[in-house]
Amino acid sequence: MGSVFGNKVKISIFGESHGTAIGVVIDGLPSGERIDIDEVYAQMARRAPGGDKTATPRKEADIPQILSGMIDGVITGAPLAAVIYNTNTRSQDYGNVMTSPRPGHSDYAAYVRYSAKNDVRGGGHFSGRLTANMVFAGAVIRQILKRRGIDIAAHIYSVGSVNDEPFDPLGIPTELIERLNHEKFALADPARESAMREEVEAVRIKGDSIGGVVECIIQGMPAGIGEPMFGGAENIISAAVFGVPAVKGIEFGSGFAGSQLTGSKNNDEFYYDGDTVRTYTNNHGGILGGITSGMPIIFRAAVKPTPSISIQQRTIDLQSGENTTISVKGRHDPCIVPRAVPVIESAAAIAVINML
Amino acid sequence: MGSVFGNKVKISIFGESHGTAIGVVIDGLPSGERIDIDEVYAQMARRAPGGDKTATPRKEADIPQILSGMIDGVITGAPLAAVIYNTNTRSQDYGNVMTSPRPGHSDYAAYVRYSAKNDVRGGGHFSGRLTANMVFAGAVIRQILKRRGIDIAAHIYSVGSVNDEPFDPLGIPTELIERLNHEKFALADPARESAMREEVEAVRIKGDSIGGVVECIIQGMPAGIGEPMFGGAENIISAAVFGVPAVKGIEFGSGFAGSQLTGSKNNDEFYYDGDTVRTYTNNHGGILGGITSGMPIIFRAAVKPTPSISIQQRTIDLQSGENTTISVKGRHDPCIVPRAVPVIESAAAIAVINML
Amino acid sequence: MGSVFGNKVKISIFGESHGTAIGVVIDGLPSGERIDIDEVYAQMARRAPGGDKTATPRKEADIPQILSGMIDGVITGAPLAAVIYNTNTRSQDYGNVMTSPRPGHSDYAAYVRYSAKNDVRGGGHFSGRLTANMVFAGAVIRQILKRRGIDIAAHIYSVGSVNDEPFDPLGIPTELIERLNHEKFALADPARESAMREEVEAVRIKGDSIGGVVECIIQGMPAGIGEPMFGGAENIISAAVFGVPAVKGIEFGSGFAGSQLTGSKNNDEFYYDGDTVRTYTNNHGGILGGITSGMPIIFRAAVKPTPSISIQQRTIDLQSGENTTISVKGRHDPCIVPRAVPVIESAAAIAVINML
Amino acid sequence: MGSVFGNKVKISIFGESHGTAIGVVIDGLPSGERIDIDEVYAQMARRAPGGDKTATPRKEADIPQILSGMIDGVITGAPLAAVIYNTNTRSQDYGNVMTSPRPGHSDYAAYVRYSAKNDVRGGGHFSGRLTANMVFAGAVIRQILKRRGIDIAAHIYSVGSVNDEPFDPLGIPTELIERLNHEKFALADPARESAMREEVEAVRIKGDSIGGVVECIIQGMPAGIGEPMFGGAENIISAAVFGVPAVKGIEFGSGFAGSQLTGSKNNDEFYYDGDTVRTYTNNHGGILGGITSGMPIIFRAAVKPTPSISIQQRTIDLQSGENTTISVKGRHDPCIVPRAVPVIESAAAIAVINML
Repeated sequence: MGSVFGNKVKISIFGESHGTAIGVVIDGLPSGERIDIDEVYAQMARRAPGGDKTATPRKEADIPQILSGMIDGVITGAPLAAVIYNTNTRSQDYGNVMTSPRPGHSDYAAYVRYSAKNDVRGGGHFSGRLTANMVFAGAVIRQILKRRGIDIAAHIYSVGSVNDEPFDPLGIPTELIERLNHEKFALADPARESAMREEVEAVRIKGDSIGGVVECIIQGMPAGIGEPMFGGAENIISAAVFGVPAVKGIEFGSGFAGSQLTGSKNNDEFYYDGDTVRTYTNNHGGILGGITSGMPIIFRAAVKPTPSISIQQRTIDLQSGENTTISVKGRHDPCIVPRAVPVIESAAAIAVINML
Repeated sequence: MGSVFGNKVKISIFGESHGTAIGVVIDGLPSGERIDIDEVYAQMARRAPGGDKTATPRKEADIPQILSGMIDGVITGAPLAAVIYNTNTRSQDYGNVMTSPRPGHSDYAAYVRYSAKNDVRGGGHFSGRLTANMVFAGAVIRQILKRRGIDIAAHIYSVGSVNDEPFDPLGIPTELIERLNHEKFALADPARESAMREEVEAVRIKGDSIGGVVECIIQGMPAGIGEPMFGGAENIISAAVFGVPAVKGIEFGSGFAGSQLTGSKNNDEFYYDGDTVRTYTNNHGGILGGITSGMPIIFRAAVKPTPSISIQQRTIDLQSGENTTISVKGRHDPCIVPRAVPVIESAAAIAVINML
Repeated sequence: MGSVFGNKVKISIFGESHGTAIGVVIDGLPSGERIDIDEVYAQMARRAPGGDKTATPRKEADIPQILSGMIDGVITGAPLAAVIYNTNTRSQDYGNVMTSPRPGHSDYAAYVRYSAKNDVRGGGHFSGRLTANMVFAGAVIRQILKRRGIDIAAHIYSVGSVNDEPFDPLGIPTELIERLNHEKFALADPARESAMREEVEAVRIKGDSIGGVVECIIQGMPAGIGEPMFGGAENIISAAVFGVPAVKGIEFGSGFAGSQLTGSKNNDEFYYDGDTVRTYTNNHGGILGGITSGMPIIFRAAVKPTPSISIQQRTIDLQSGENTTISVKGRHDPCIVPRAVPVIESAAAIAVINML
Repeated sequence: MGSVFGNKVKISIFGESHGTAIGVVIDGLPSGERIDIDEVYAQMARRAPGGDKTATPRKEADIPQILSGMIDGVITGAPLAAVIYNTNTRSQDYGNVMTSPRPGHSDYAAYVRYSAKNDVRGGGHFSGRLTANMVFAGAVIRQILKRRGIDIAAHIYSVGSVNDEPFDPLGIPTELIERLNHEKFALADPARESAMREEVEAVRIKGDSIGGVVECIIQGMPAGIGEPMFGGAENIISAAVFGVPAVKGIEFGSGFAGSQLTGSKNNDEFYYDGDTVRTYTNNHGGILGGITSGMPIIFRAAVKPTPSISIQQRTIDLQSGENTTISVKGRHDPCIVPRAVPVIESAAAIAVINML
């Protein structure tokens, strides 16, 4: 149930991190669309750990096998299914998690939900690894959207207290979109990278972790897309983005900062740019009354610090009913924000194609 | 489409602010539940303008007429429908909006969406008045939830830069819930009221407006509710809360602030309180991996400043294709945050009953 | 839940037969469509009892009041809501049904479903009267479909063992469609009317009832509409048509008769008629693999005999736990098939607009 | 879109007959349920061709590989995914179908729907082979239902004009259910088998095909399940059963025959059997007003004769725009009715678990 999203284009995600395979079925893609599969792999590589000092050295082989829905690189219109077989894990790293829930993880909540049958190895169905599926789907969808003039690009807005240069809400250049779409550590201002990596290294050596914010822009959306009230663009995008693990907040346009502004400062005034209707400012983040205005959609997602830290933490023993402590072993990301960038772009893509 | 929410309990909202009537149909309520209709009216009165200096003097008669689904105060199980006839407006206040979109309003986006057929009078189907429907539905649902041990309470977290005392994420006392649930200017610390009203008055006399943040707590949710990935509690609650006009952001638990914390600071450690599983802190806001943990769900919604201000603003003339200016006449709320409190509580209730 | 149908165009129906009002909300209609409200009333009059000897003399005032979604006869795109206030019933006719379920009615099943809270007066939310809502929605939708070249027409295929002339599955003339769409006793061959009325009269004087079959044709559907497997045209049409009370079966094209044919006889061979692709025969009823072929969609719905008969029947007393008997008083239709014709056309329309 | 069914338990089916693999994802199964995988294979074997003279000699290896959702034979609650790799086909048998649509098949309709991109090899996504997925899902679900006292059993009601002994609508013995559930040629009266096989052989040697009817009973459903109007048991069951290829009609209880009865004959009178409420007859097929009554649900599905016949047929050439003829080569089932039995049972199971 929760692992299915969408009405026009239905995305079904399955898999457990340490199970046989993970995969995704996408039902409703328009037939005839040509897909560059190498570009899809490139997007998945952005998400994969390894090759980036902030990420987990555990190598994931993320080559998806396409089972249906694509012939000679062209989408047939029938459901597109892709699976990724699990190959490289060390299950002994997850020894005692089935009895002692790890703080900040889904362990306890899932234990109650699934009456102790949840496959917790590696987080099971709640594992960050499942996001590989989202990126596959998002990567395919983004090629279709791009052909219709819609671009999606995200960057690391902040890690801890170190900020990147924010996006210009009036729009960012195509070259920046292209560069960001192919980077593993996506920054508008690459000069900020070392400061950010230091922020991460500082916690990594302590066995701790740090969070951050991802900012995402969607350019080229036509005006008039979305429904009032419950079917609005914010409703659909947030419903998709909260499907990305570790996301705990989302804001559109001026968001929380805008709540402290006056109307005269927050309102975006209209003007004609030739025949095109634009606004001088974009505090509305491209969405008015749930419907797109034609200005770029811009949102920020708060990513909590990775719960997996090797520092000892207090927890409970579900079998004995006693309080206890736990130390989460294994190889963990001290900061998943860089890897969350393509995942959040994918969630946005999944939302957008369901709105068009 | 957008005006329908839910799967188990479907809420259909209809109506235009200056049309014949507005109303709501709620399909899927459990039969046999007794509803105190005076308490429902009391909740609707909290939302209605008038009787509160920060609000609009335009008197709305919000007495709903129940057409079906309730017999002698007991829910039958068949769809519950209620309508509110529109009686007291001054349509000449909305004179030139059909040609010049008001900045910050849905006018332009809806104009494109509905090919100029949108009934824009008073914002039409996008009017804040439609929230009366949400409060009716929410008020009915909250009585059902209360009987199952689930309480929902919100307060004005901030107006502009003036803050209320925030909720204790570990839980608030029943007496506070009761008091807040019956106030029109809901504050945890009533002493902050005058400072807030000054903040509002300062903008009102200038014909401007101010925004704020509403904080909402849901206590008594059992653990294990929700689905991983796209069906999580954050996904469903945000999909409902973004249905409240003017909401531009939402965060759960430590939210955006948590993104700047380390894992050791943000993780909530577990312990046994007798037989009950609790956490020492509640940065996860009661939700882990999309599933409830049993701790209170706590979230904050950013409410943008009311777009309707009488200050002159630049806009376009859709008929002439020229740039122009507009001055929105009529009686407007300089700050809708107090009135948004029961609406956001209602949106939360609508989400919760669909998750149980 | 069950009273809401559709994805693109959502129909929410509410009301109890002897409650305050019944009504319908239609969300998702395309804005700008002009509706002839007199034509809508004309369709509703076809369904209403009275003015036809086979029907119930209980006069229903079926004039709907439109509350939103239409301005000066043009659809705005916001939800269209219409209510019909209940005026003319005699509730004492339904005296003892709350304790003794009437055979063939929903009484017992609803009693269990709603834990005895179901408003059974007149059948409550299960009343045939609710079909007035379906006809209102269907009548509005059919005007939109007609403008797109899609016509829907049904007739009384049979009453008891008396048959009308069946539709030509290759298509029926426009004049026939027009005539049928405005008759209360819709027959392809009007000469069969007296034989049918005799069939009905024969049971009426005995206090009994008789069933029949309604045949419906949908002409002008473009080819390529629908989805394979679960989203096919048969799936969606049947899901809507079974929403019509008393329908107990549906078949498309050659249906059950086709199951006795050989493939060589049942297959429909293709040919070019100019540039248009047609089939020489239409046993597939316009649907192949769930997707429309461009040939007319044709289906038949079995309507069971009205359960309300004044003949004494055995039943149970839910309060005493004893077997007992019942005699259903009041004024009842001995045959609802003629009145079911516009309702089934409406169900088909509701299905079609959700497929386009 | 069309390849996804359900709300509580979502079934997503993917695959093309001659593609890499076919598969199914089931999201929403209750955790903790133990599944006998050999029994699942046994059900799939009933559907598979081979080992039965009426079926196609093309051997399908239908051993599904479970990728997620089950650990040590116990359902975890996370999505259960299973794939079946395609191994044994002769693609040259489907030589010219991409330009000349086969009469009775989905070829032409899908050609229009998917703008000629549909993978038509072997019927592509419309292939009967996809039903292996439905049987896998249905077999898993039926074990869960059985544990809750709900049994589903179907038999060949008729092939051509040869009938089996119909089910007793008041219920069939457990031994009969067990026997039928494990037969490839499921008959209530096994003595009728040779007459049926002769009916099939008679058309097979002519290169033709024959259809039939499958009757299905669901015993043990509690009363009070379902929703009025559009959410009724008939609506949901038919929406699932029409997902089975070749089904062109469905009737519940006395169905079409009942339309010719009087109310006094068709109504089922209630009585107390101890504390249990029953009816003396079961023309309502266990469903009243869309809600279950506690009596067995019984329905019949019309299965059209297999469109694939080797007899020459008239068709069109989509490339040249000319009329032409076609002879469908390859190995085809002259009668798929026996193989449709477990598929229809599965469709019923998928519907039932979504209603509980």
